[in-house]
Amino acid sequence: MDKKEILSKNVVLLSEVTESEVRMQTQGGNQPSIEAISRIIDLLKQIIFPGFFGAEIRDRESRYYHIGVCMEELETRLKEQIRLSFKCFKGENVCEDMSDEIAVKFIEMIPEIKRVLYTDIAAMSETDPAVTSFSEIIFCYPVVQVMVNYRIAHALLTLGVPVLPRIMTEMAHSKTGIDIHPGAQIGEYFSIDHGTGVVIGETCIVGNHVTLYQGVTLGAKKFTYNENGHPVNLPRHPILEDNVTVYSNSSILGRITIGHDTVVGGNIWLTEAVPPYSRIIQQKAVSETFTDGAGI
Amino acid sequence: MDKKEILSKNVVLLSEVTESEVRMQTQGGNQPSIEAISRIIDLLKQIIFPGFFGAEIRDRESRYYHIGVCMEELETRLKEQIRLSFKCFKGENVCEDMSDEIAVKFIEMIPEIKRVLYTDIAAMSETDPAVTSFSEIIFCYPVVQVMVNYRIAHALLTLGVPVLPRIMTEMAHSKTGIDIHPGAQIGEYFSIDHGTGVVIGETCIVGNHVTLYQGVTLGAKKFTYNENGHPVNLPRHPILEDNVTVYSNSSILGRITIGHDTVVGGNIWLTEAVPPYSRIIQQKAVSETFTDGAGI
Amino acid sequence: MDKKEILSKNVVLLSEVTESEVRMQTQGGNQPSIEAISRIIDLLKQIIFPGFFGAEIRDRESRYYHIGVCMEELETRLKEQIRLSFKCFKGENVCEDMSDEIAVKFIEMIPEIKRVLYTDIAAMSETDPAVTSFSEIIFCYPVVQVMVNYRIAHALLTLGVPVLPRIMTEMAHSKTGIDIHPGAQIGEYFSIDHGTGVVIGETCIVGNHVTLYQGVTLGAKKFTYNENGHPVNLPRHPILEDNVTVYSNSSILGRITIGHDTVVGGNIWLTEAVPPYSRIIQQKAVSETFTDGAGI
Amino acid sequence: MDKKEILSKNVVLLSEVTESEVRMQTQGGNQPSIEAISRIIDLLKQIIFPGFFGAEIRDRESRYYHIGVCMEELETRLKEQIRLSFKCFKGENVCEDMSDEIAVKFIEMIPEIKRVLYTDIAAMSETDPAVTSFSEIIFCYPVVQVMVNYRIAHALLTLGVPVLPRIMTEMAHSKTGIDIHPGAQIGEYFSIDHGTGVVIGETCIVGNHVTLYQGVTLGAKKFTYNENGHPVNLPRHPILEDNVTVYSNSSILGRITIGHDTVVGGNIWLTEAVPPYSRIIQQKAVSETFTDGAGI
Amino acid sequence: MDKKEILSKNVVLLSEVTESEVRMQTQGGNQPSIEAISRIIDLLKQIIFPGFFGAEIRDRESRYYHIGVCMEELETRLKEQIRLSFKCFKGENVCEDMSDEIAVKFIEMIPEIKRVLYTDIAAMSETDPAVTSFSEIIFCYPVVQVMVNYRIAHALLTLGVPVLPRIMTEMAHSKTGIDIHPGAQIGEYFSIDHGTGVVIGETCIVGNHVTLYQGVTLGAKKFTYNENGHPVNLPRHPILEDNVTVYSNSSILGRITIGHDTVVGGNIWLTEAVPPYSRIIQQKAVSETFTDGAGI
Amino acid sequence: MDKKEILSKNVVLLSEVTESEVRMQTQGGNQPSIEAISRIIDLLKQIIFPGFFGAEIRDRESRYYHIGVCMEELETRLKEQIRLSFKCFKGENVCEDMSDEIAVKFIEMIPEIKRVLYTDIAAMSETDPAVTSFSEIIFCYPVVQVMVNYRIAHALLTLGVPVLPRIMTEMAHSKTGIDIHPGAQIGEYFSIDHGTGVVIGETCIVGNHVTLYQGVTLGAKKFTYNENGHPVNLPRHPILEDNVTVYSNSSILGRITIGHDTVVGGNIWLTEAVPPYSRIIQQKAVSETFTDGAGI
Repeated sequence: MDKKEILSKNVVLLSEVTESEVRMQTQGGNQPSIEAISRIIDLLKQIIFPGFFGAEIRDRESRYYHIGVCMEELETRLKEQIRLSFKCFKGENVCEDMSDEIAVKFIEMIPEIKRVLYTDIAAMSETDPAVTSFSEIIFCYPVVQVMVNYRIAHALLTLGVPVLPRIMTEMAHSKTGIDIHPGAQIGEYFSIDHGTGVVIGETCIVGNHVTLYQGVTLGAKKFTYNENGHPVNLPRHPILEDNVTVYSNSSILGRITIGHDTVVGGNIWLTEAVPPYSRIIQQKAVSETFTDGAGI
Repeated sequence: MDKKEILSKNVVLLSEVTESEVRMQTQGGNQPSIEAISRIIDLLKQIIFPGFFGAEIRDRESRYYHIGVCMEELETRLKEQIRLSFKCFKGENVCEDMSDEIAVKFIEMIPEIKRVLYTDIAAMSETDPAVTSFSEIIFCYPVVQVMVNYRIAHALLTLGVPVLPRIMTEMAHSKTGIDIHPGAQIGEYFSIDHGTGVVIGETCIVGNHVTLYQGVTLGAKKFTYNENGHPVNLPRHPILEDNVTVYSNSSILGRITIGHDTVVGGNIWLTEAVPPYSRIIQQKAVSETFTDGAGI
Repeated sequence: MDKKEILSKNVVLLSEVTESEVRMQTQGGNQPSIEAISRIIDLLKQIIFPGFFGAEIRDRESRYYHIGVCMEELETRLKEQIRLSFKCFKGENVCEDMSDEIAVKFIEMIPEIKRVLYTDIAAMSETDPAVTSFSEIIFCYPVVQVMVNYRIAHALLTLGVPVLPRIMTEMAHSKTGIDIHPGAQIGEYFSIDHGTGVVIGETCIVGNHVTLYQGVTLGAKKFTYNENGHPVNLPRHPILEDNVTVYSNSSILGRITIGHDTVVGGNIWLTEAVPPYSRIIQQKAVSETFTDGAGI
Repeated sequence: MDKKEILSKNVVLLSEVTESEVRMQTQGGNQPSIEAISRIIDLLKQIIFPGFFGAEIRDRESRYYHIGVCMEELETRLKEQIRLSFKCFKGENVCEDMSDEIAVKFIEMIPEIKRVLYTDIAAMSETDPAVTSFSEIIFCYPVVQVMVNYRIAHALLTLGVPVLPRIMTEMAHSKTGIDIHPGAQIGEYFSIDHGTGVVIGETCIVGNHVTLYQGVTLGAKKFTYNENGHPVNLPRHPILEDNVTVYSNSSILGRITIGHDTVVGGNIWLTEAVPPYSRIIQQKAVSETFTDGAGI
Repeated sequence: MDKKEILSKNVVLLSEVTESEVRMQTQGGNQPSIEAISRIIDLLKQIIFPGFFGAEIRDRESRYYHIGVCMEELETRLKEQIRLSFKCFKGENVCEDMSDEIAVKFIEMIPEIKRVLYTDIAAMSETDPAVTSFSEIIFCYPVVQVMVNYRIAHALLTLGVPVLPRIMTEMAHSKTGIDIHPGAQIGEYFSIDHGTGVVIGETCIVGNHVTLYQGVTLGAKKFTYNENGHPVNLPRHPILEDNVTVYSNSSILGRITIGHDTVVGGNIWLTEAVPPYSRIIQQKAVSETFTDGAGI
Repeated sequence: MDKKEILSKNVVLLSEVTESEVRMQTQGGNQPSIEAISRIIDLLKQIIFPGFFGAEIRDRESRYYHIGVCMEELETRLKEQIRLSFKCFKGENVCEDMSDEIAVKFIEMIPEIKRVLYTDIAAMSETDPAVTSFSEIIFCYPVVQVMVNYRIAHALLTLGVPVLPRIMTEMAHSKTGIDIHPGAQIGEYFSIDHGTGVVIGETCIVGNHVTLYQGVTLGAKKFTYNENGHPVNLPRHPILEDNVTVYSNSSILGRITIGHDTVVGGNIWLTEAVPPYSRIIQQKAVSETFTDGAGI
């Protein structure tokens, strides 16, 4: 079989809908657009941090013009993407109305989302001695990027929007290495330093003034399976009360409560509840001196 | 010396080929194009997940047109990038023929790559209780992104293509924080949850139905050096048999075998072989209550 | 209130400068441009690795033309971004002169930055047996990407440029998962393998021939607060002497010295100084065999 | 009034809907998109001249894939732009159905449009001795560009589509300087050489095998006005029978018939009917010799 | 000489500043940016025809936001391009202030420019029986495109801005084939139908309610030269009083006055003044019937 | 037949190669790329008018860098487009060598092309009293745009390159309305004012110091046909000796010689030879006064 035949044959072969595709119902209509969602996040950044993202803001009127223009584009794009998330097609008016309504409800929530995001920035500035200005935090710190996406995604999830919230947090995950499930509930004045490898699971509840370092997992330990062998979506991630700090690369797993004002050291594997005011540290490593140049 | 002189002087200075460059033979001809490789991955996604990536698919004929168009562009771009990878220039016909041949051989492998990728998605849906739809996995989950790139790269590597496979897995590494060497051999129904920080080394052999969590390293422990002091490329990474699960931030190092149906807990440093049906957990952390507000 | 009213009301609401914004002084003029900074990095890559990034280089003259053109654009863009970093506006000539002067001083440093970057590549080639060519390292290895950005950013920081250096290292952090503060001092022949999750803090001092693996943190343990409760920026990160290797996911915290020729194993939490020629390993994990199919 | 006040005042002033705008009803909803219409023309060129515009065509199957893909995108975009031309908004389903229907009717007409366009190319090759290949005509000759747009626009106009046809012919007008109203009726084997300045009015009827040169006007001489003083849209442009040639810069005006097999010379102002087989030439110019260096 | 030498030699040769370049002083600093000027025109279209160009306008507030945002960008870009037109560099503050001042003065003129442009549209709708809607005129008619650019350019010229006005009218010339010098003075209710080839010279004075057709030249007949042999810029183009119509391809040349309410037929070469209420027509062409198939 | 069937049917129908396509041999391989040719022109403008097109030029060295970089890209792109023009495919080495050779020969001609283009600019500055600076001419005047393309195209045509030259002059035709065939021979100090509608035929010979105005045609009057009825490509366009001026909208047709130092007035139809020092003017138009308000 020559090259031309191989190509033709493979086009035919790959055009057939495989059993996997049928089983997974991956044959669909329009899908949400990554570009559009990315633009939605961008517009919200311009609305929430005017002057930092988007055009230069000269004065109050300038602020008003720009926020107005962003808000209109936001509303248009958001309802479109919500509609696509519901897999509703253009003719299905009921669905379209619902999407419009949710978009407006979300817009009503923006000032509150803004307020809480500024508490996260304040917390960050108190956590990291390397901070030289708020500009630096807003511009450079991955935690801002991830919390903007998470707090938007969480709001949309509470409004019942499918798929879209997860796409948003995965966008932030890809850029920052911080993976916060939109279902997690996170309080005010939340900060993450460095952050690469942080995972916060779907049913986590995190209080106020909590700080995490890179590589921290707030995960599940064990799943419950239903009679069909599918994992059941129950509360399975930890609860962190107020004023908890978790150092780098520690894993806190299962539906356990970490009491308020607790410090968890680095590289800890923690699967049991901890009372308030605790301090958890790893067992001391074994150390020896060697001079033979060998590795470990 | 004024500014103009400094600029001129530095242009001259930097135009000289340094000894390092000579030694490293970094003076080269054309290099593979990142944009072109990125487009190759994109085309393969449209071919393997039609309707999810690329244009809307209306019906069977529509699927056929689109896969046909993608396949042609794929073939053209792939053979060009393979050729550049071989650093062969346009006049060297032998090399050009070889590149064409490899491109076609790769195209023959696409249906099998597709089949296995769907087993990965199936595995993912069984691992994570937070999954609400297959769309969500295909769109959002970093593991899909990384496995698409890895499985393509691995196929190209087995066909003898240099450089290109590694560029592909590094692209996925950059986006997902998951670093799978194209040389690793990974079975079906493979899943990685969250994934940031996962490293799978060049000579790893991974069975079917294996699940890894974020921060897991399947690495080398010690290198063998040849008489010139250069590290030798021998099997040096672990073998994971079927049905192994490794929790977050654990490192499994060296050419050791982890027996089938084993669970490795989180934050483990494992450098010795483990029999089937094992369960490995970290020693309990030290905990104490404190009320003096101090850190660790 | 109907949709139109809600939108209008929210535009007004969000146009008001909140107390947080006033307190954080986030109302500003022009900000540095992410696109421009990204282009600056790109130009430096073309200057330092001619033929690998940017147009094909044919011969010495070709090299000279291209480096000349890149250098001019670099100078123009760099002084503009330095000026924006100083938040100086166009009329403030003093500031403009200072920015020009710094840009030229930086340009004088490029040949030395280039020299050191080539030592990093050499180190990388000696660390990883999977390396097949220098092209592969320059093109594929995240460590190159991160060290280019870090070494540029560090040079700018020593010249007194604010904000810009941090933006540069965060760009690399986002792409590679490796977070090196521009303030850290890192010697020659430095290599990081895989690298996701690596954190190197602001006051670290790292010797020559040091190798880190993924997930390694060189961090702070405890902050000193001033009378206002703000953390004070003192030396608080470790010193690694020459020839130190740290394996995956270990954390070395606080202003401690790790003596030369030391190897730190993986998953270690290290907060105390270590003499030269040490070898640190984790306590052995608990292992048991089970056949009941349960997780951990 | 300072700069800031002037800007603010003018924003307010220009935000007010002027009387002219009210009178002209220029306040509207969505308008057709120039980009989308431009893409529609582009897709039709790829369908009608496969291999000349769009991707390289390798063989029959390749042709089939590409035409299939173009056809789908064409259908989607065309119905959208038709709908916008009808100023119908998304909820108005009747209008949406009508737009869909017209788009399909138009698609049915494409093979006939293609056939006629190839007669124009054939005519062009017989008119111009400078032609060296058909490729040259299809690629270079403005007449092809203008006839593609005109023949598409005319078909859409006969299907009752408003605005869109005129936008299409104005696009060609802008690129070629040839202004053919979509309402004109033009036979087969039509050619225009050079063409800049050619105008063909709305009610023209042009036979087969007609050739025009640059600057030729087939225009109206006099309008009829209705009782409100508005010009009435009656047949007012000339009829050119088969085999008529009109040389450069001549104007033929009014509802007059130019009989078949007639040649009209250049720079003629013609407002009266002409019988078949006529030959019209300008009166001889006045010539004198001068040696005083003066202009005219 | 081989290829490499030829290239090198020619680079050197072409790098030398030729005598022509010295004589023409074509060695300069920054030049105005075509892209920026194009954007300025675009912003003015959005301000003057909101809803037709730029984003959809929903209501009064929407109009206000969008005009506000456009106005700010306009002001920023315009003063930059004016500055570049003055060839003034950044440090020359006097020049910068002047540019800012002119930009603001121009902004004050926008409402009047808008008013007059709407009279042109009104005139166009009364001239052409083929008009079906005002949308069609604004979207499709080249005269709108050319008059927008001309009226902006003329305003800038009266404010003393060099080069920029001419670039603007040449942009319209390129797109429409209508060449209006920014220095010409043109009254209200001006219309041009088809328009390709129309030329209106620098010192023309055109009254109200004037209509021109394609190919009409309002040009100079004879130049006056100064003692150095350079042409002198004196009034040298015609004056058209109110209510004059000129048909296609006619040329009116020299500082002559065409009296009000005059009609000039097509293809006329007119170099003498004409009293009011005149009607000018070409001498009748010679016509003969022929049957021998020959051309002219 | 429903919509889906109509689409499918038409895709099949249009995929068939029609008889016209077979006859015209329009089935081809790769075609020259409009984008690449456009870039070639752009590079030549940067080489010939450094500082006017492309980046700012600071000094001699800057000029050298930029011309070097442009020259390399020019050489690469030009030989590729020449090769495509010869319809030669990559393996055909003979053809490839020829294309390379022609590209180099062309590069050798650039300094001479530059010299002559500067004479055109000088001529333009002496023709038009509205000129305020050379910058204005280079930036704004369509004649520069058209002469750059023509003089490049003519050089390529003399080197035997097919198709490419015509595409270049048609690009300029589209932008300026001036249609100069690349085969025409045009002397130094050539100028065209306004220019829309100018046509200069393939076999024209134009001396030095010739000036044309808008709408001038230097065309063919009559074709000679061969035994197959195809027009024969013989000398058929006029010869204009030195110092000839032709005013707007005149047509000079056939292989006639216009003697040196002749002035041809506007709107003339000239088909007979004219001795040196002639002055040709149109017969006087008929003029009458009317007061009844009627048109012509």
